[in-house]
Amino acid sequence: MKTYSFNQVELTGGYLFEKQNLNRNITIPSVYDRFFETGRIKAFNFDYKPGDACKPHIYWDSDVAKWIEGAAYTIRNHPDASISEKIDDLVKKIKENQCEDGYFNIYFTVVEPSGRWKAREKHELYCAGHLMEAAVAYAEASGKRDLLDCMEKYADYINQVFIVEKSADFRTPGHEEIELALVRMYRYTGKKKYLDMAAYFINTRGAVEEQKATFCDQSHLPVREQNEAVGHAVRALYLYTGMAYVANETQDESLLAACKVLWEDVTKRKMYITGGVGSTNVGEAFTTAYDLPNDTAYTETCAAIALMFFGNAMLATENNAEYADVIERALYNGVLSGLSVDGKKFFYTNPLEINLSDRYETSHGKRALPITQRPAIFNCSCCPPNVNRLLASLGNYIYGHDGDTLYVNQYVASKLDGGDVSCTVETEYPIGSTVKITATGAGRVAVRIPSWCRKFSVNKSYVSENGYAVMKNDGSEITVTFDMTPTANFANTRVFRDIGKLCITRGPIVYCAESVDNGAYLHDFLIPTDFICTEQIDEAFGLPTLNIQAFKRVNESTDLYSHTAPRLESAELKLIPYSCFANRGETDMLVWFFAK
Amino acid sequence: MKTYSFNQVELTGGYLFEKQNLNRNITIPSVYDRFFETGRIKAFNFDYKPGDACKPHIYWDSDVAKWIEGAAYTIRNHPDASISEKIDDLVKKIKENQCEDGYFNIYFTVVEPSGRWKAREKHELYCAGHLMEAAVAYAEASGKRDLLDCMEKYADYINQVFIVEKSADFRTPGHEEIELALVRMYRYTGKKKYLDMAAYFINTRGAVEEQKATFCDQSHLPVREQNEAVGHAVRALYLYTGMAYVANETQDESLLAACKVLWEDVTKRKMYITGGVGSTNVGEAFTTAYDLPNDTAYTETCAAIALMFFGNAMLATENNAEYADVIERALYNGVLSGLSVDGKKFFYTNPLEINLSDRYETSHGKRALPITQRPAIFNCSCCPPNVNRLLASLGNYIYGHDGDTLYVNQYVASKLDGGDVSCTVETEYPIGSTVKITATGAGRVAVRIPSWCRKFSVNKSYVSENGYAVMKNDGSEITVTFDMTPTANFANTRVFRDIGKLCITRGPIVYCAESVDNGAYLHDFLIPTDFICTEQIDEAFGLPTLNIQAFKRVNESTDLYSHTAPRLESAELKLIPYSCFANRGETDMLVWFFAK
Repeated sequence: MKTYSFNQVELTGGYLFEKQNLNRNITIPSVYDRFFETGRIKAFNFDYKPGDACKPHIYWDSDVAKWIEGAAYTIRNHPDASISEKIDDLVKKIKENQCEDGYFNIYFTVVEPSGRWKAREKHELYCAGHLMEAAVAYAEASGKRDLLDCMEKYADYINQVFIVEKSADFRTPGHEEIELALVRMYRYTGKKKYLDMAAYFINTRGAVEEQKATFCDQSHLPVREQNEAVGHAVRALYLYTGMAYVANETQDESLLAACKVLWEDVTKRKMYITGGVGSTNVGEAFTTAYDLPNDTAYTETCAAIALMFFGNAMLATENNAEYADVIERALYNGVLSGLSVDGKKFFYTNPLEINLSDRYETSHGKRALPITQRPAIFNCSCCPPNVNRLLASLGNYIYGHDGDTLYVNQYVASKLDGGDVSCTVETEYPIGSTVKITATGAGRVAVRIPSWCRKFSVNKSYVSENGYAVMKNDGSEITVTFDMTPTANFANTRVFRDIGKLCITRGPIVYCAESVDNGAYLHDFLIPTDFICTEQIDEAFGLPTLNIQAFKRVNESTDLYSHTAPRLESAELKLIPYSCFANRGETDMLVWFFAK
Repeated sequence: MKTYSFNQVELTGGYLFEKQNLNRNITIPSVYDRFFETGRIKAFNFDYKPGDACKPHIYWDSDVAKWIEGAAYTIRNHPDASISEKIDDLVKKIKENQCEDGYFNIYFTVVEPSGRWKAREKHELYCAGHLMEAAVAYAEASGKRDLLDCMEKYADYINQVFIVEKSADFRTPGHEEIELALVRMYRYTGKKKYLDMAAYFINTRGAVEEQKATFCDQSHLPVREQNEAVGHAVRALYLYTGMAYVANETQDESLLAACKVLWEDVTKRKMYITGGVGSTNVGEAFTTAYDLPNDTAYTETCAAIALMFFGNAMLATENNAEYADVIERALYNGVLSGLSVDGKKFFYTNPLEINLSDRYETSHGKRALPITQRPAIFNCSCCPPNVNRLLASLGNYIYGHDGDTLYVNQYVASKLDGGDVSCTVETEYPIGSTVKITATGAGRVAVRIPSWCRKFSVNKSYVSENGYAVMKNDGSEITVTFDMTPTANFANTRVFRDIGKLCITRGPIVYCAESVDNGAYLHDFLIPTDFICTEQIDEAFGLPTLNIQAFKRVNESTDLYSHTAPRLESAELKLIPYSCFANRGETDMLVWFFAK
């Protein structure tokens, strides 16, 4: 299907609408302020001198570029002079400081001029890619082409250096991103050269002798021979997204086949129930199939966002609700857990279990465990502006069309103005269970039946196609109702760390328990597979919390080992949405509970 | 009680007798050969020159000293000219190469002469301690005083440097050991100076400004203020053993109180069911209470051996079977797992779970997990000669006396010749359930009722005292029968990694499953708490294996997550003694199983 762009979709109410407002009103200004305080904004003045306090870093272009991209999406639907001014100021500086030949990089131009195109792992092409995405977004949002002109010049120069002359010290980026960015440049400008560049970087990857090429950056094999997701998760998923874009634009079947195999590996063997991916901190990477430890889960916010990108790219190649299911899983859980309820603080890592008692000091310092509270910024601060741009562009994920069929992929109160096709969705989803859809201009409407949903009803006759209920459209209201009763989920036993356990979901929302509600020793709780629970809306979270009639193991003695199993007693267990964990101070947290 | 020495006890048959024979016939010669091949023996020639292949290492004195000690115990009861010759040759070289002032260290004399007494963490006093233990053992075993004379000279010099002059660059050893060794010197020579030296090192520890003092080497607090076992587990337990020795010899109540608190912390909160201790590889250390991960368990063989030392030292201060229970637990499980069934290979680390699928490569190399097969030697090869000396001196742990009461602490077919008191034990324990004891010269006999035992019978009337059944002795045969039916054990729920699980023991033996017997995915098995099983003697292991009527979880689909719990089906599960794991090639291994 062709998915509609955020430009054509306006969110009108509900949970995600509120998150988008929070992003616009709080998160985007807050990320800018932190970037200002840490010298990231000032770095665009190109006036750093040795000895200055704030030395530009090789990541900084990308941090600010992602902020520009997110801010641009926001002003498209909600003009805001203060934000436009900040973007314009940055664009002005980029224009002023771009090199004659088209090169632009705040670190390499100012701090290490002799290092240009020398070190594959130093993120130059990655930064360039993010600047290109920002340029496209800003042109789309404002109609202003200044940044896009700069980035076209930069892209042309990159083409000369990497493809025509092959004069750089490396052939492909150490951190992928530019591939997908170049396709976005192509789509916006219509210049096929950018698509060819994207294809070049993808086809060259792993296929030539290369500087510092490893499985960590997916350079171990030509991309069509890669059948396992390996290495740095964000790099991998940006690459796969670029691959799916190129496959789709060029009808490259072998490239698409590789994308499908990699999608399967990620989502069927290496994905947490939260949609988090990349289970180890070592290299921020994918590991082996079914290796999904909960307490050490790395599951970077950016990786969950990148999984949404990859899913949407795949959805564009195939009308299959499975991709939208994964997008939904990641968005409501592993992505939104990256942002504090107040909109100002971020998790880079999103574990599925916190045991405060386990955070002991060793002779070599603290253990390598995810942090337990969200800070406002990181030294490597990729996630905050990634949240900015994701939330500002949620409209990209909601609707699609193929022929005369309108697809409703995500349930958000919203209006689509797709030219020939328009649609209105009214719903309180994911709190409410009913979705009302009115479409005009489409002969058929396909509504996704989420994979989490076991009971639903539709007020029209429909046929099932790849996870969608597809019905003829006569313009009258379509009403779909999903059974949102909280339910137990079980992991495949190959995930040995979750054996004997269950996880509670309500609709798309994964739940967890915190010791701030339930006291210490969350592992002592058991939840019956046929549990009974009550729901209550939590105003701060904007979602229901659950009170479950559970059980708790109680030791019969203080003995370390005994011949007697701990006694079970009834106990109430309060669960909160996983994405809301760690908003009320230091606490233990648990997603997977023993099943009774 | 006063425990009888290995000098007075002869093992006459059964499982431990065979292990002792294996140690004498295979393990002791094998460790010597590996030490020869790696230059450890040649290093005693003191002829290393820069550029030579085998550069002596700061640990090497201690490796060889422990081998001498073990070999000495062996020749005491089983004279062997070839072994005596090897020891004599080493002693000759020690004598020849000891410095005029008494100093002896193969590394610092030859490789780094300017480094003497400069670096607290470089094991000089640790090596000295092991040489002193070897000297006492060899004097006891052979009556030859050459090595003891050398070590008395060394001890006198250490006294001068550390206590009289305080001229070393540090005050106490970075790796404890010399404290307990000095008490052994005192006990053998009767010279109180050595006891005073031991007390000095113990009382000074953590009480003065000190070089590189941390909790890692238990220098964070004066020893009497230490109430948690912290840091490097072997160092800690050697220290605690020395503390208990000194407390016992000097009737130091405050020191003994500290020992008791530390014993409680180790055995009630930080000990695996195998008697393994020290749960993290980071610093080879104790961590927090109840932090007992199974797959990353470090549980060094030396630490389990050191726990036996500490237990025996505590037993000497208090007639309490609890100490002997822990000794038994460690010996049959976490110590013997350190030695291969063929007697030639060793584990340094003894995990309670191996998941081969989990040993993935990261961008920074392999994960820090215990190795899965025993090698014949290590770069840091402390464990192999520690096994040598432990098995050769098993007689130290069997009998004790207090007043006219003879204590039988461990059940081994053996003969005690304790002067006034003698005793014969006949038993097939731990295979057989019956122990026959005939004692003369003791008014009472106290037999330990193991903490693992819930049903037992004694053919005499008895009173229970601190875990012992105590009865009058008329010289007639005492028969004790223990119910050896395999049984389930449950961990305190504070050990959250073992919640919902059980571990099978038969008598003192902990059992595990291996995938070489049961196929992959050992985590899929569940064992009913009231399981039924059959037993069969395994000739290679010398112990019974168990066949359990268990259950196995079976996935209903290949889905990663589903709303349906895996199905249970009946499945047979073969268990082998934990100490015998990894003797039949690479395999998964599991100790704790889900309880059904």
